[in-house]
Amino acid sequence: MIGAPLGALFVEGEIAGLFSGAALTAAMIRVEAALAEAEAEAGVIPAEAGRAIAEGLAGLEIDPGALAEGTASAGVPVPALVAALRKALPEEAAAFVHWGATSQDIVDTALVLQYRAALGILEARAARLIAVLKAASEAHADLVMAARTRSQVATPITFGLRAARWAQPVIAEAAALPALRARLTVQFGGASGANTSVAPHGPAVSAGLAARLGLPDRPAWHTDRGAVQALGQWAARLGTGLAKMAGDLILLGRTGEVTAGIGGGSSTMPQKSNPVAAEAILTLTRLTATLAPALSAPHAEERDGAAWALEWLTLPQMLADTGAALAHAITLAETLRPDPAALRTPLDDGAALAEAASFALAPHLGRAEAQALVKEAAEADAPLIEALQRLTDAPVDWSALTPEAVIPACKAAAAQVFAAARP
Amino acid sequence: MIGAPLGALFVEGEIAGLFSGAALTAAMIRVEAALAEAEAEAGVIPAEAGRAIAEGLAGLEIDPGALAEGTASAGVPVPALVAALRKALPEEAAAFVHWGATSQDIVDTALVLQYRAALGILEARAARLIAVLKAASEAHADLVMAARTRSQVATPITFGLRAARWAQPVIAEAAALPALRARLTVQFGGASGANTSVAPHGPAVSAGLAARLGLPDRPAWHTDRGAVQALGQWAARLGTGLAKMAGDLILLGRTGEVTAGIGGGSSTMPQKSNPVAAEAILTLTRLTATLAPALSAPHAEERDGAAWALEWLTLPQMLADTGAALAHAITLAETLRPDPAALRTPLDDGAALAEAASFALAPHLGRAEAQALVKEAAEADAPLIEALQRLTDAPVDWSALTPEAVIPACKAAAAQVFAAARP
Amino acid sequence: MIGAPLGALFVEGEIAGLFSGAALTAAMIRVEAALAEAEAEAGVIPAEAGRAIAEGLAGLEIDPGALAEGTASAGVPVPALVAALRKALPEEAAAFVHWGATSQDIVDTALVLQYRAALGILEARAARLIAVLKAASEAHADLVMAARTRSQVATPITFGLRAARWAQPVIAEAAALPALRARLTVQFGGASGANTSVAPHGPAVSAGLAARLGLPDRPAWHTDRGAVQALGQWAARLGTGLAKMAGDLILLGRTGEVTAGIGGGSSTMPQKSNPVAAEAILTLTRLTATLAPALSAPHAEERDGAAWALEWLTLPQMLADTGAALAHAITLAETLRPDPAALRTPLDDGAALAEAASFALAPHLGRAEAQALVKEAAEADAPLIEALQRLTDAPVDWSALTPEAVIPACKAAAAQVFAAARP
Amino acid sequence: MIGAPLGALFVEGEIAGLFSGAALTAAMIRVEAALAEAEAEAGVIPAEAGRAIAEGLAGLEIDPGALAEGTASAGVPVPALVAALRKALPEEAAAFVHWGATSQDIVDTALVLQYRAALGILEARAARLIAVLKAASEAHADLVMAARTRSQVATPITFGLRAARWAQPVIAEAAALPALRARLTVQFGGASGANTSVAPHGPAVSAGLAARLGLPDRPAWHTDRGAVQALGQWAARLGTGLAKMAGDLILLGRTGEVTAGIGGGSSTMPQKSNPVAAEAILTLTRLTATLAPALSAPHAEERDGAAWALEWLTLPQMLADTGAALAHAITLAETLRPDPAALRTPLDDGAALAEAASFALAPHLGRAEAQALVKEAAEADAPLIEALQRLTDAPVDWSALTPEAVIPACKAAAAQVFAAARP
Repeated sequence: MIGAPLGALFVEGEIAGLFSGAALTAAMIRVEAALAEAEAEAGVIPAEAGRAIAEGLAGLEIDPGALAEGTASAGVPVPALVAALRKALPEEAAAFVHWGATSQDIVDTALVLQYRAALGILEARAARLIAVLKAASEAHADLVMAARTRSQVATPITFGLRAARWAQPVIAEAAALPALRARLTVQFGGASGANTSVAPHGPAVSAGLAARLGLPDRPAWHTDRGAVQALGQWAARLGTGLAKMAGDLILLGRTGEVTAGIGGGSSTMPQKSNPVAAEAILTLTRLTATLAPALSAPHAEERDGAAWALEWLTLPQMLADTGAALAHAITLAETLRPDPAALRTPLDDGAALAEAASFALAPHLGRAEAQALVKEAAEADAPLIEALQRLTDAPVDWSALTPEAVIPACKAAAAQVFAAARP
Repeated sequence: MIGAPLGALFVEGEIAGLFSGAALTAAMIRVEAALAEAEAEAGVIPAEAGRAIAEGLAGLEIDPGALAEGTASAGVPVPALVAALRKALPEEAAAFVHWGATSQDIVDTALVLQYRAALGILEARAARLIAVLKAASEAHADLVMAARTRSQVATPITFGLRAARWAQPVIAEAAALPALRARLTVQFGGASGANTSVAPHGPAVSAGLAARLGLPDRPAWHTDRGAVQALGQWAARLGTGLAKMAGDLILLGRTGEVTAGIGGGSSTMPQKSNPVAAEAILTLTRLTATLAPALSAPHAEERDGAAWALEWLTLPQMLADTGAALAHAITLAETLRPDPAALRTPLDDGAALAEAASFALAPHLGRAEAQALVKEAAEADAPLIEALQRLTDAPVDWSALTPEAVIPACKAAAAQVFAAARP
Repeated sequence: MIGAPLGALFVEGEIAGLFSGAALTAAMIRVEAALAEAEAEAGVIPAEAGRAIAEGLAGLEIDPGALAEGTASAGVPVPALVAALRKALPEEAAAFVHWGATSQDIVDTALVLQYRAALGILEARAARLIAVLKAASEAHADLVMAARTRSQVATPITFGLRAARWAQPVIAEAAALPALRARLTVQFGGASGANTSVAPHGPAVSAGLAARLGLPDRPAWHTDRGAVQALGQWAARLGTGLAKMAGDLILLGRTGEVTAGIGGGSSTMPQKSNPVAAEAILTLTRLTATLAPALSAPHAEERDGAAWALEWLTLPQMLADTGAALAHAITLAETLRPDPAALRTPLDDGAALAEAASFALAPHLGRAEAQALVKEAAEADAPLIEALQRLTDAPVDWSALTPEAVIPACKAAAAQVFAAARP
Repeated sequence: MIGAPLGALFVEGEIAGLFSGAALTAAMIRVEAALAEAEAEAGVIPAEAGRAIAEGLAGLEIDPGALAEGTASAGVPVPALVAALRKALPEEAAAFVHWGATSQDIVDTALVLQYRAALGILEARAARLIAVLKAASEAHADLVMAARTRSQVATPITFGLRAARWAQPVIAEAAALPALRARLTVQFGGASGANTSVAPHGPAVSAGLAARLGLPDRPAWHTDRGAVQALGQWAARLGTGLAKMAGDLILLGRTGEVTAGIGGGSSTMPQKSNPVAAEAILTLTRLTATLAPALSAPHAEERDGAAWALEWLTLPQMLADTGAALAHAITLAETLRPDPAALRTPLDDGAALAEAASFALAPHLGRAEAQALVKEAAEADAPLIEALQRLTDAPVDWSALTPEAVIPACKAAAAQVFAAARP
């Protein structure tokens, strides 16, 4: 709701545009036109009426504002829309508009069209993000850095592997898209879901409508909202993945190990460069995760006005927010600036080699003694490997104990991650 | 995000208007002006500068759209706003705008002004709803109906008591407003919360700023968001109360016991009258309850860009949605149409008098036997009291066992509820 | 947390048992044993050590309580567990337990084993529920009732179709299980996800471990929690489906149209029969939906101790609650008691035939006039069809306008729903 | 649900114990006893029965497991409990147990007793935490460190002020307790909330019951759950405050600036010391925040079985989790180990003095030029103040531009925070 100025970072044009009044109205008109054709083909309405409606509605524009009063009164825009369409059509065809359909058939099918269009945009952005991260991962495949587990320096990894880990959830959720899309189908059930007023042609009309709109056909799902719920949940999962990258970049920016984006100035501290894009990703994806449970409200009986409208108020928002988060993530991925020296600093004391040293010593000392010795060395006043050399004369090849030793394994791990990406 | 046509029932003008770009920009300018005056008074900036800024900013309008680019770059609109204000001021005063303040001081204080204005609107609507429900409760104080517990007919109550129960949470949350307001205070902490650049005048400036804006003064709360969180939680609580009324009206509308509002027509079923306002209340209040946990994100260190912006995207929405829900609730309360005959129908078989009959028989038969007898009578093919009279000759005054017998107790209970309302 | 007495309806034994301390400890031991074998096979540890560990851990029981102190200190039970395992093994093998693994490898893989076992139980219950609902749907395929849309009587449908609608989301989520299971894979990444201490054998060990445990193999997912998140979301979706059935049964129970379950007595009203199982389903599934967003917390860097532990506190609960809800749903489905007379009552005034009458009259009068006439008739003091016959002499076959006319379409719609169920 | 070993850090004994089956059963018996006394006093039941019940129930223990079957059947334990109590009482008194009450009266009042006891424990822990943080704040009042805003080094503050900021939300929520407690009142409404079966003595019985149990009296709140909702929301707010401290400590631990608690060892990296207590706080408080919206479910009509039971499954958990988080926070506060050298490191380059330098230069150069000069100096290869001295000969007292200059303002700010704490 919040507009400029506070909303500037959170606005998304392309996906939000799919859910504007004009776009939704156009989508509903498109559904009514396709319905008339499908019903004409199935013999439910006269062929002539079907043709006249399809022609009359092609390119017809209805001012969505003109439907607001009708929506406020009916709780759904379709009665007002159908009235407007009838006015725009020749009389003998007008009666056959919306024949046997219920408001929910039109609204749900129109929304599915827009949801699928939004998914197309999100998919393209996800693919772009994966590609940019893959290039970054490969470009920095030899750049060592400190892994952190539970917020503590752990072992060395490469920045290339870290970038691959950012891509990993995006790859997984991109792979989940076909199954998600297959659930987003045509809605045609009539007043109470059994298409009684076009019986026995319900299935034929549904199939014809689906085919005309390029949608999968399945039984009416007036009250089975699993597909819509799954869509919102997918956005939440993708958002969680993007938030991981954003959060990591904020942490890496603290020490200057990696910066990214075009940092924000401060109103009072001239030296600062705030991680605005990464923060915006956190904000947007938390909002999406917060909204997701709204879609879990069960729908009652044959149609639930309250739980249904809650979808309208949340799912378009979640998709647009996810799109905005993806756009910010692409910007960040395109502007990654790792600082090799800063990345190296946390490795300097050698503590990150403790695990490797333990494994190198274990064959000579036994595991328990090896770990104890490493612990002792870690507390010494010298870099770990140096301290160890002083403490033991076990015949370890100390020269192999460098951060760089992890590079091949990290390359292999990164390659595994990207191998799962669809081309 | 969703606009017309689907959003028609969920739009709220007055509160939403407080959070428009123009209104927020104006509020931020108002804060900067008051700050300059307070700082001049405290001797932090020249008195002349304070005057010049106050005069220069009075009535100044800045196009919020012009700040969008700056906000997108800085993550916060204040640097761009301050630059614009400086341009609009004489040079010698310009340098003293925003002196020692941080962006968060300005944004938070401006938002607090708008939150408090929103509370004023909500409070007035709540008061109106309480008044209308009180009138309805009194008007229907003698109208008996079936209470339902766990979705089953229980004992008789009056519709007057039911209406009082709808008012009860609204009264409780209206009573919680003063404590809530007392937490919504001025924000003035400077770069890192200690007002170091205006030291030792921080407390004096904060107090002066607060006084000028009519706000309570308290220590900087850059990262202690309890007040903001409590505001959202209050909206969630009020919403739960409104949803109770809406849900009850939908249930009462099923049997025609009580209808309310101007029901929505169906696109295909001419006889229907959909409970659109009650459904809208459910939708809006569930959205508010869903959004509330977004405000529980902890803020890090001295300022948290991500968690802070999440407040902007959720709390204004929650307040506007609560305002819309209240407006729908007032409409429903003003148009309650109880149908005495329909309300009486569920009482006809006398089952709702089972408890009363048990109590009436207990002195004569003992409690266990009384309950067993009532159970037997309830399964008979006659109204309960009639069946009981056949089954026992216990000297019970059967004529007192009527639904109407509950009226005095219900009146007393309703009066207790409204006695808690502030005048 | 709540135990007896308040928790009685919400306890689930079988799935909860998978997450008891003993079961989790046993699963972790099983993973350590399989890991040793896989590492021996890959040549990472001596073949003898692999054998000795596998033998030594087979059937070994460790008291989970004995690990509590170690867990409280380490934040994870594995260090204490590994110490206990070493004590139980011959010295030369002991050093090779847990070789190159990190705590998260063991805990995640053990949890995945239990999650998959839980899914097996849930799948079987879902299949049972679908089967019982299918039988009920077929048994009541000719039993007409009033559909309700937006809480108002709409058109006639059959109780058989309503039962099919209850099955519909369960069928859809059962169909989603294979994709969900494919994401629940082995976890093996070592300290920082690159398996550096067993390099270059990481992939071979991972594959060997997966094969021994019957799990799919995929790259380490220490911080990519999409699979776990998706599991919780699936439970939320299934729960929403069950809640629809429960909510509908509570509504149908109000009017006695359909009762189910063994209703609960009241402490004070002898005639009541509370819908306790249906209420319990609502409670359990709302809890699951509420908990789901906990799984959206992003994980930081190479391992996130806080977000990870949140999974332990929520996902087992969600699965057990879903299992309990399914059990209650099966009970309800097995005890459905439709009352044909009560189901017929809301159809008596003919209003539910309004749509059908409009369609029947439209060819003779035009659609607008047909709808107007039906509206007029609906307000008359007679059953709708009777009133219409008085108002028009249009040559309509009135005898076809009966609730029963919807039976074939409803049968077809129900058949379509069950056609999607896997055998 | 999860037990040892994974749950070890999340278990809380004292508060959880208040909601054990035995404790809840004892609390319900206490309520029934007090009710009998209050009813005897009001003349609703014979004085003798009141006495006999009070005596018979004093110290009576009922095995909560024995009520489980009855609860599972009735959805509420009271019918089974009342039956058990009657068995334990002399026949003439037995009939008067639970006279005129409904199950919800007993369960809600018993839970309120336990909620208030839990609040007492939480209040004591909060007071302890405030006291420990106050001592730490004072002990470290002169210890400078880098403030961070939006994850970037901002200006210097003191660790004493940071510790005060951790206390700030705890102080605010401790101050909110009296209002919260005032809402947690006796419940006595009888079958449908109007106390018809004890009319006109309902108010007198309610008052007597409240007085005996030390609770505030107010009208029956069977379906107005604002008080319960507010309690959960309070826990969420307090949790957010604790999470701020925990998150800050994890960040400070990354650089060794401040460590706290007894860090956890790693299963494979001997050098690590994981921030397990801080992570546990994040886990516990996120769980509480996640659960809070469950309490926003509206209650229907005169009693809602589903929404009511959801309270049982969530609120005790939230309170116990908050208690566990407080206990971890106290441990952390008691073991704060700031490292002055590490805290100083981020201040070494002088960038944190940029704001102060701008303000010092502004009177001499004008604000814009001063900021530009500071920016230039910040990019130089020397500490900021040194670089500035080279760039300008403005007569600034450079020796005053030290991190220590902020100490007085930070002391004042910290003092303001603690001034708000109740003694």
